[in-house]
Amino acid sequence: MMLFPTNEFVKLKESLVIYECALKNIEMRIDILLKDFLTFQAYNPIEHVKMRVKTPESIAEKLHRHNLSLTVENARTHIFDIAGIRCICYYAKDITYIADVLKRQPDIIVRGEKDYITNPKPSGYRSYHLILDVPVHLTNKTEILPVEIQIRTQAMDFWASLEHKVRYKYKNKMPDHLSKELILCADKIAELDRRMYLIQEIVDMAY
Amino acid sequence: MMLFPTNEFVKLKESLVIYECALKNIEMRIDILLKDFLTFQAYNPIEHVKMRVKTPESIAEKLHRHNLSLTVENARTHIFDIAGIRCICYYAKDITYIADVLKRQPDIIVRGEKDYITNPKPSGYRSYHLILDVPVHLTNKTEILPVEIQIRTQAMDFWASLEHKVRYKYKNKMPDHLSKELILCADKIAELDRRMYLIQEIVDMAY
Amino acid sequence: MMLFPTNEFVKLKESLVIYECALKNIEMRIDILLKDFLTFQAYNPIEHVKMRVKTPESIAEKLHRHNLSLTVENARTHIFDIAGIRCICYYAKDITYIADVLKRQPDIIVRGEKDYITNPKPSGYRSYHLILDVPVHLTNKTEILPVEIQIRTQAMDFWASLEHKVRYKYKNKMPDHLSKELILCADKIAELDRRMYLIQEIVDMAY
Amino acid sequence: MMLFPTNEFVKLKESLVIYECALKNIEMRIDILLKDFLTFQAYNPIEHVKMRVKTPESIAEKLHRHNLSLTVENARTHIFDIAGIRCICYYAKDITYIADVLKRQPDIIVRGEKDYITNPKPSGYRSYHLILDVPVHLTNKTEILPVEIQIRTQAMDFWASLEHKVRYKYKNKMPDHLSKELILCADKIAELDRRMYLIQEIVDMAY
Repeated sequence: MMLFPTNEFVKLKESLVIYECALKNIEMRIDILLKDFLTFQAYNPIEHVKMRVKTPESIAEKLHRHNLSLTVENARTHIFDIAGIRCICYYAKDITYIADVLKRQPDIIVRGEKDYITNPKPSGYRSYHLILDVPVHLTNKTEILPVEIQIRTQAMDFWASLEHKVRYKYKNKMPDHLSKELILCADKIAELDRRMYLIQEIVDMAY
Repeated sequence: MMLFPTNEFVKLKESLVIYECALKNIEMRIDILLKDFLTFQAYNPIEHVKMRVKTPESIAEKLHRHNLSLTVENARTHIFDIAGIRCICYYAKDITYIADVLKRQPDIIVRGEKDYITNPKPSGYRSYHLILDVPVHLTNKTEILPVEIQIRTQAMDFWASLEHKVRYKYKNKMPDHLSKELILCADKIAELDRRMYLIQEIVDMAY
Repeated sequence: MMLFPTNEFVKLKESLVIYECALKNIEMRIDILLKDFLTFQAYNPIEHVKMRVKTPESIAEKLHRHNLSLTVENARTHIFDIAGIRCICYYAKDITYIADVLKRQPDIIVRGEKDYITNPKPSGYRSYHLILDVPVHLTNKTEILPVEIQIRTQAMDFWASLEHKVRYKYKNKMPDHLSKELILCADKIAELDRRMYLIQEIVDMAY
Repeated sequence: MMLFPTNEFVKLKESLVIYECALKNIEMRIDILLKDFLTFQAYNPIEHVKMRVKTPESIAEKLHRHNLSLTVENARTHIFDIAGIRCICYYAKDITYIADVLKRQPDIIVRGEKDYITNPKPSGYRSYHLILDVPVHLTNKTEILPVEIQIRTQAMDFWASLEHKVRYKYKNKMPDHLSKELILCADKIAELDRRMYLIQEIVDMAY
């Protein structure tokens, strides 16, 4: 297991507190959107929201995988999912809408985005990734930090957890039949999501 | 819309506060199980938990449907899902395990249970229902109240919300093609849940 | 009791949701300051935080007291404490420090402030009031709303609740002996706050 | 600093999770009392509630102070405030009422109690301590654990924090003038609590 040297570890722990603050900032924005959806819109697309700050061990491992030395500086410069929030929505159609609403907010900078809904990964992975730079106002300074937002449906989310578990177990040497079975499941999920969305559309249009 | 007469409505609102307390009791028990799973067991089967107390409107409607007059007495005697908690778990195999753990607790009485996992409803509905009587200690007396616990997987839960919406829209006169499509989706979900459970079992068994 | 006309009431209820969002914004800022104090500073001055959005009844009453007709427009233009947050701190010395930190944040506008710590009201009331304009990002627009922040010590807060209760009971015709007793209590509280702050200063300075 | 040996430390960390569960149990009971007070009683005596589980360091120190070896067994047998909850109420008169309501609950055993309100400590310390044994239902067994409940007013609580800080700094060799000043503050607080309670009583009796 990769570990930060002690002095870097102490600094990292402090940095992670500021990443928690960045998460709080995005959480507040999503809470406000939820209130807006429930009060002013016909429909609330967000099922629920999960958050986490990456552990030091997982940051160390990611730096190591990218051949970077284990320093706070490297973590802050090269890793953009230290603060991560996952927004689970009801239907695939909701995903880009939620992404657009967040991207439009005036005091946020979009640092990057990847649309694995339109273009799923070969593994079958489907999700929308957005990296947003948000301001964190501390007592005596303002810091700008990246937060990764993953937007996906419940079924995509469940599949992704399973796939992550499998990949982790086999350390990227996943047996062929398992990766094929996972791709199959991912396709079935996408089809089911579509079918159920169709039912909901029919119902909404009914007199 | 069915409405309680004013004096019954006032008493009902007070009763609902006690049902909220009963919910808190069950919520605490599930929180403790979660801590146990995460600390002492190899695996946590609970994805998340949702709760609600039925609204007066919805209680009135249910009494009316059962040809009962709109009184608090009738609500308390005949409706057992006024306090409802939904426990969403990862795999269908987890469902009876969670039910068993709750049923075994010494200061709880099992008033009823229905296993729609083993025997799905004709509509395709799958879920495990448990009605538990729990004690609520108020300042000067103890009341015993029923709480309905529904245990199901995420995909079953999602399907159930959609089916409820369709049924509600068509007031039980659901067009045939929609009910057939819903049954089809329910079967596909059950199959997917099984497939993904299999993948997870294979991974767990791997050396 | 003063009541909004129905159509204004409906609009007001919707507006209050946006005020709740403004509260969330300030709550997030104070949460972040708390994390900063606990991680990077020698001392955390904030004991706890309370929030509330004014009820329609209480807004109506305030408009009436100011001879304004009961419209949402008037509420939004003339009442600045619809969203209110109370920050309870340990010592009187902390109060202006917390106020300063909030006032300095770049995306906030200070609409007004009143320092009843330096200049207590004749009634004995001590507290620091700050009205901040904060942005609320909704799905399709950004609104700017005022939030009132009251900063005071626990003892000042307790006294203020009691005084409010007395004033409310006697409808501003408070018997003389009660208002004198309240002023006496307020002075004793201020003295106690000072004495206990002194003890804490002595302890901090000790080798 | 006292530290548990590694194997005991690991077991202790697991035990502390069960103490957290015991806290949840008492928290639920107090939440329910709060709902009762706010719905069915004329008056809610509880201002707020705080909880904590003792840290391993602090448990080790307490065992050491009592000349006990650092084992989980000793911690569980001899320390009764590992799980602690503090119930802050408005007036001194409320304290025994809240204690009585908790003591009366049928599935709780009172292991001990100390009334430092009627008989303050020589230091000036005022508080009511109750040790309750509560059941914790885990997946496969039920454990009975003690929880300490401290009931006091806000001002008593504030004083106690300050006194603790002073005592901690001077390691029980508190300078005489400081302990005298603390006793003076404690007496003034008790007098103020009484005066303000009187005001509130007068107001409640007013026509």
